[in-house]
Amino acid sequence: MARVIGSVVSTQKDSSLVGKKLMIVRPIDSDQKEIRFEQVAADTVNAGIGDNVLVVRGAGARRADGESGNESADVNDCTIVGIIDRFDK
Amino acid sequence: MARVIGSVVSTQKDSSLVGKKLMIVRPIDSDQKEIRFEQVAADTVNAGIGDNVLVVRGAGARRADGESGNESADVNDCTIVGIIDRFDK
Amino acid sequence: MARVIGSVVSTQKDSSLVGKKLMIVRPIDSDQKEIRFEQVAADTVNAGIGDNVLVVRGAGARRADGESGNESADVNDCTIVGIIDRFDK
Amino acid sequence: MARVIGSVVSTQKDSSLVGKKLMIVRPIDSDQKEIRFEQVAADTVNAGIGDNVLVVRGAGARRADGESGNESADVNDCTIVGIIDRFDK
Amino acid sequence: MARVIGSVVSTQKDSSLVGKKLMIVRPIDSDQKEIRFEQVAADTVNAGIGDNVLVVRGAGARRADGESGNESADVNDCTIVGIIDRFDK
Repeated sequence: MARVIGSVVSTQKDSSLVGKKLMIVRPIDSDQKEIRFEQVAADTVNAGIGDNVLVVRGAGARRADGESGNESADVNDCTIVGIIDRFDK
Repeated sequence: MARVIGSVVSTQKDSSLVGKKLMIVRPIDSDQKEIRFEQVAADTVNAGIGDNVLVVRGAGARRADGESGNESADVNDCTIVGIIDRFDK
Repeated sequence: MARVIGSVVSTQKDSSLVGKKLMIVRPIDSDQKEIRFEQVAADTVNAGIGDNVLVVRGAGARRADGESGNESADVNDCTIVGIIDRFDK
Repeated sequence: MARVIGSVVSTQKDSSLVGKKLMIVRPIDSDQKEIRFEQVAADTVNAGIGDNVLVVRGAGARRADGESGNESADVNDCTIVGIIDRFDK
Repeated sequence: MARVIGSVVSTQKDSSLVGKKLMIVRPIDSDQKEIRFEQVAADTVNAGIGDNVLVVRGAGARRADGESGNESADVNDCTIVGIIDRFDK
């Protein structure tokens, strides 16, 4: 779980990252408290700033809808894969 | 080891997550003290809120019974794979 | 490096975990001080409570002797792969 | 996100690392505050000291442009894959 | 980056670890300050106690020169892959 707080602009980058929206996300818990440190995550669900989102890491990050389909050349290791509507506790 | 404390509702998400129960889990130690931060984990063993559970991360998370069988398109990186009856020490 | 401090009893669990001994291990350093938090690790070397052991994580954990041989359906992500006789410093 | 602060000189190393520029990077957040500890990352985008960069870890690190193309013998687990022009928040 | 501080003796261990030198390494930064906790790493570059070394984790650790060549049965998840001559900053 993380909150989107901004984006990163990068012109010079790996070819597999071209065309991806690279968002800055801050991990949160279900009380929406910030935990740990910011990360960069590729957006595949059209998330906006302030949205609470689901984030996956590692190989799963290269398998999201909207990833290139060329997993063997994809360097991405962190992806936004869902928008959180609410927490039920 | 973690305790289930709630669930996450997400309408807009990766197609590989549709139909999965996404639980909020809080890592615990064997004294049931909470350690580290909450995470989202897909449930494959019908865990309920308050249950102590076994959680796996990474590729193992995509190989649980009840996962889709289409591992190459699965973004999930954290899964509940067992319910803990007790700790023996 | 970790010390075995107990085990976990789980009846309802992923089929790939059936028959495995699931131990509770506490990471230690070479002065045998406890570091970080407890984890669950599958035992493949017949470790006993109080033993200092070698633990591996991730894909390596599914390749130990005594793992099922069916790596593509194995959810395990942490395995005890050796018993430490002593630290030489 | 990380800032490049130097490089590492290593003569005796794995054959898959020969010819790679091994930079020392310090993770930062979008306020350019330093977070966590330094790491070594292979440079594939010609980053200079003081640059803010995108860093990936794990399998993605072995898939960057300019990596050897022989992923099955590549030990590298951390790569600089982009130069950050600016943070938009 | 890490410093070698000792080794581990283990008689009863996974068959893929037999014949490997298992060193105790302590992560350091480029000021040679100790950071985080000790780990066990397989040595493939003939590192000695006191050497500053490059360490890789995960799948990369099983691809180093001198690893067995039988990656699918190798449990090792941390390997010393270079000796650091100096830090340039």
